[in-house]
Amino acid sequence: MCPEITSNTLERNYILKLTILFGGASFEHEISIVSAITLKEKLTTFDLSFVFCDGDHKFYLIEPSKMKATTFSKGEHKKMPELTLKSGAFTHKSMFGSKEYSGVFLNLIHGGDGEDGVIASLLDFYSIKYIGPRKEACTFSYDKRFTKYLCQALTIKSVAYEVFYKNEHKNLTISFPVIVKPASLGSSIGVSIVKEESEFDYALDTAFEYDNVVLVEPFIENVKEYNLAGFMANEKMNFSIVEEPQKEEFLDFEKKYMDFSRSEQVSKASIEEELVNKLKTNFEKVYRGLFEGALIRCDFFVVDGEVLLNEINPIPGSMANYLFENFEESLSLLANSLPHNKRVKVSYDYIHSISQAKGK
Amino acid sequence: MCPEITSNTLERNYILKLTILFGGASFEHEISIVSAITLKEKLTTFDLSFVFCDGDHKFYLIEPSKMKATTFSKGEHKKMPELTLKSGAFTHKSMFGSKEYSGVFLNLIHGGDGEDGVIASLLDFYSIKYIGPRKEACTFSYDKRFTKYLCQALTIKSVAYEVFYKNEHKNLTISFPVIVKPASLGSSIGVSIVKEESEFDYALDTAFEYDNVVLVEPFIENVKEYNLAGFMANEKMNFSIVEEPQKEEFLDFEKKYMDFSRSEQVSKASIEEELVNKLKTNFEKVYRGLFEGALIRCDFFVVDGEVLLNEINPIPGSMANYLFENFEESLSLLANSLPHNKRVKVSYDYIHSISQAKGK
Repeated sequence: MCPEITSNTLERNYILKLTILFGGASFEHEISIVSAITLKEKLTTFDLSFVFCDGDHKFYLIEPSKMKATTFSKGEHKKMPELTLKSGAFTHKSMFGSKEYSGVFLNLIHGGDGEDGVIASLLDFYSIKYIGPRKEACTFSYDKRFTKYLCQALTIKSVAYEVFYKNEHKNLTISFPVIVKPASLGSSIGVSIVKEESEFDYALDTAFEYDNVVLVEPFIENVKEYNLAGFMANEKMNFSIVEEPQKEEFLDFEKKYMDFSRSEQVSKASIEEELVNKLKTNFEKVYRGLFEGALIRCDFFVVDGEVLLNEINPIPGSMANYLFENFEESLSLLANSLPHNKRVKVSYDYIHSISQAKGK
Repeated sequence: MCPEITSNTLERNYILKLTILFGGASFEHEISIVSAITLKEKLTTFDLSFVFCDGDHKFYLIEPSKMKATTFSKGEHKKMPELTLKSGAFTHKSMFGSKEYSGVFLNLIHGGDGEDGVIASLLDFYSIKYIGPRKEACTFSYDKRFTKYLCQALTIKSVAYEVFYKNEHKNLTISFPVIVKPASLGSSIGVSIVKEESEFDYALDTAFEYDNVVLVEPFIENVKEYNLAGFMANEKMNFSIVEEPQKEEFLDFEKKYMDFSRSEQVSKASIEEELVNKLKTNFEKVYRGLFEGALIRCDFFVVDGEVLLNEINPIPGSMANYLFENFEESLSLLANSLPHNKRVKVSYDYIHSISQAKGK
């Protein structure tokens, strides 16, 4: 009577219905597509749907079998059902009525739109449940200047920095070599390492092509780097393993691109338990009271035994699946522990009381 | 031939087409209605339209003659044209086709939705021009905890504080009397002044009814308070006069409510030019690189000659019109100097290059 129930099926108690929202009008549009395709391959026990946000901010429901890069580069998604937002769901309206797509969404839009708080606000406004950083968390992670503000307020150590605004003329006080970064872009776009003063203005101009605010930091050579991912579920932190990422001066766009399609679990960095704990303590300081609802990856530097926060990735490439021992279980746990946003019930008490007083 | 052109009309070179967006699902819903009605009376030379966001997050186009409080408390707005968002405009769809409402909007939704970054994100996503704080600016002004972070990063002085999270058990280190505030609400909702320890837990519980994060500050008696509003246009700061607000221990909801309907210009605080300049310097530090596009009001304390930032109002009640000598001109100036959000053009270069390589 129930031929599908095998021991294998029974083990899958973490099966989850999840819609992956990807794309977005950003420099990381292609990377988000790669991430979504990777997750489709990784989340085999999930019941997945896919919603694509194109460069014109239109949403499309993508047939799972069409989840390949060329669908989007060839514009074939435009033939698929277009969706609009309404309270509680994405909706497809057609001659035959309208169909709603609700449930839990995973915000997998990297860079602009997804990581800057816009998509979070949209989903909140339309009361759609989602895995991903809330808008305030986005502010502090998307703009590297604000990550520094956060570190300062929470007494988390990070690399020294100087902010440059467009059209501002001032001298750099940090010694070379330095690293020059647009404040608000990921994936190394617009980033340069500057070894001497003569190259500085060009690097600044390059970064200003992408943002009106630029951060300059000392470039620390031979720094130890460690990545740690994690999330909170039922008020408890859940951490991935710590990875020592592949050593490169810094990852260019193409290498990062490959990075977003990783799905093989990596091996733990061979570091002492004490350092692992230090990384976790810093991670939790960043996360608590701000990143609830999101699975994030924090990238740390270790300099002279001191842990420095380098970057917060609030929507890491392919959700840093390769750092989790049981990624599907982790994601299910998070999906079942999302912050709920009670919508305020508006009242007209004051207006009623004035109208009544006037009526007397 | 042109009977309408009189000297009076000719003087009105700052006439502006503007749509006021008000309401929102927040505790300040009624206050936003009052603010919008006040601006309707104040902006007599403007060509105004009104879009109302109701408690269910539906938008309605309000007939200007129906701009009175009872329209909304009686639910009469539901009979007016419902609008939906699309790229560049709010749209009304009917049997006869669709009509678009575009141009410049003024975000006048106080409190949640309007001041927390949600409406800013919505308008940005749909490429609608607006006067109002951008989403990052909202993060730093809506949550008082993050205003403290901003002060710390920019070395702006503010009152000492302690953060309490819900379900966290810890002792207060600040001496009584203290003021207890939900981190993210305006208009004194949930705020208590606590004179002695026995009242503290109750005040904390009251504040936690509105937010999961609560700020406690020392309550400074007989503090001098000064309010200053301003905005940036064409990269230049424009300031209002400085007001010394009416002295109250603190404004309760009803008094604040009256405050939102102010339209009479107030008189300048009688303070020395040196203090005015100090206030302006602090204001500009807060504003630059974050609040562009918004007309904000900063509320300062002065203690022993030292200026402390108390609060940032990124959408002040009735836009603090009463602080400006020529409010209509100021608003026009701002409307013509809004930051533009270039939408990133997505590219498929990387996908194309992979597909080509595979095709070989």
